[in-house]
Amino acid sequence: MSPRSDSGPAVAVALRVRYAETDQMGVAHHASHLVWFEVGRTEYCRAAGFSYADLERSAGVFLMVVEVRCRYRRGVSYDDPIRVETRALTCTPRLVRFAYRVLTADGLPVAEGETTHLPVGRNGKRAALPAPFLELLRRFGENPVPGAEHS
Amino acid sequence: MSPRSDSGPAVAVALRVRYAETDQMGVAHHASHLVWFEVGRTEYCRAAGFSYADLERSAGVFLMVVEVRCRYRRGVSYDDPIRVETRALTCTPRLVRFAYRVLTADGLPVAEGETTHLPVGRNGKRAALPAPFLELLRRFGENPVPGAEHS
Amino acid sequence: MSPRSDSGPAVAVALRVRYAETDQMGVAHHASHLVWFEVGRTEYCRAAGFSYADLERSAGVFLMVVEVRCRYRRGVSYDDPIRVETRALTCTPRLVRFAYRVLTADGLPVAEGETTHLPVGRNGKRAALPAPFLELLRRFGENPVPGAEHS
Amino acid sequence: MSPRSDSGPAVAVALRVRYAETDQMGVAHHASHLVWFEVGRTEYCRAAGFSYADLERSAGVFLMVVEVRCRYRRGVSYDDPIRVETRALTCTPRLVRFAYRVLTADGLPVAEGETTHLPVGRNGKRAALPAPFLELLRRFGENPVPGAEHS
Repeated sequence: MSPRSDSGPAVAVALRVRYAETDQMGVAHHASHLVWFEVGRTEYCRAAGFSYADLERSAGVFLMVVEVRCRYRRGVSYDDPIRVETRALTCTPRLVRFAYRVLTADGLPVAEGETTHLPVGRNGKRAALPAPFLELLRRFGENPVPGAEHS
Repeated sequence: MSPRSDSGPAVAVALRVRYAETDQMGVAHHASHLVWFEVGRTEYCRAAGFSYADLERSAGVFLMVVEVRCRYRRGVSYDDPIRVETRALTCTPRLVRFAYRVLTADGLPVAEGETTHLPVGRNGKRAALPAPFLELLRRFGENPVPGAEHS
Repeated sequence: MSPRSDSGPAVAVALRVRYAETDQMGVAHHASHLVWFEVGRTEYCRAAGFSYADLERSAGVFLMVVEVRCRYRRGVSYDDPIRVETRALTCTPRLVRFAYRVLTADGLPVAEGETTHLPVGRNGKRAALPAPFLELLRRFGENPVPGAEHS
Repeated sequence: MSPRSDSGPAVAVALRVRYAETDQMGVAHHASHLVWFEVGRTEYCRAAGFSYADLERSAGVFLMVVEVRCRYRRGVSYDDPIRVETRALTCTPRLVRFAYRVLTADGLPVAEGETTHLPVGRNGKRAALPAPFLELLRRFGENPVPGAEHS
């Protein structure tokens, strides 16, 4: 019932570090993690039952990023397999928050972060997340079954 | 009169290699050059008398990239000052081509390339480059005075 | 026997267009395709029996990009599933060339391109591709069996 | 005297939003701001009297990013002129923190953020920021004169 669901299921997606994502330190550049988080959000929405692309295209609602935070634990190199786990922290009509963990293949922490989003319409003005999408996110977030973990 | 103007003026823009543009080889990643070419096109249009952003916003015409070619001569490192020179090769209502040279501060060749563009409308269908923009590009491209070199 | 193997097997990798890869035209930015080609090369090497990361790390040899060409056939949007097919055109100790096709889920052409690479050492000087890697690429490239198509 | 210098001078750098930095929402993608912060850091170091590239190359010390935070206030579009202001928050041998503001040409807030860095050596292990660089950062950070604002 609560809009908060910190203990909701995590959706995992497997990636490999791309060459273009590395920098001259020899590890993935720290902006790459934000892109991986975005891939994580995409897969979280899909696991919850909708396509984020459809939210934008059909409903004309965009989850504008208003805050990002990331803590980096360990560098990852080109071609390293990584896993991005995404979890919803808050799902209300006016605010959505996600949390992320990036892990090595061995489960060692690479980074953790959070993003905060405000739903906006095509005109850029604040809008309410349409009820069907909100319901899917909430129902999925309250799902306690371990099987909801996609990994 | 001719739509070709290979000998037209070059517009130069000065940049520095960004850290995020490097990869683990320690030099700028080869996709960065395409982004620098794009910066070069933007400044070429501005020097010709219009804003490419306005072409899209006001006229609803986009110069869709249909071909890119780049030859790499020499790696450039983080914070290296570079110069991108852009020249129009072809300006017709239905096709625009640009050529680029990227140089070090000492004038040594970093890369050369070309991009080919088709004007398209907001619907993605082919369109004609609106006459006022075409005229500005052509007039600028025929400009033989050395002073047209912006550097 | 020939160093050319235009008819060699293609290695396919499935991707989805990332949000960060789109631009304000609403489709993937044209520099993204070069990054997808790079992902394609990585998987081609893996299918041939070695890790490109190992070539760099163990042998200290880098396949420096000296030329890129890409022709764009059709825009692809955020979250669109795409397929990158990579094929080796030339594998000699001193020159490697790859060809790529990017396709939609329906097999429609998105882009085609080629990259040319010179093996270089850690010092940036030209080097020979070490024999074991060259042999793996050649043997794989000559593989005529349809089963070599990974898709 | 204090290692903290919140009130130290800001170093400003003028940029324009690149086309490749936009996404399908029509504004700069939120990861672009991290790259602008990095450009800001580069110019801050230069204003303080050294090249960050030299710190890496000569001293073999890297300012590894361990935390990033960014709050987004307003979207910026392709070719919009923006200004990145960088300020040092903390400069100790073992920890460096920077704060950033991104502003429109009219001085409206685009984003604010902070990055935290640990000096590491070529081996990736923690290291001390070499004294000459630390002194330059501290001396510059304590500079109270308004003329220290580079804009």
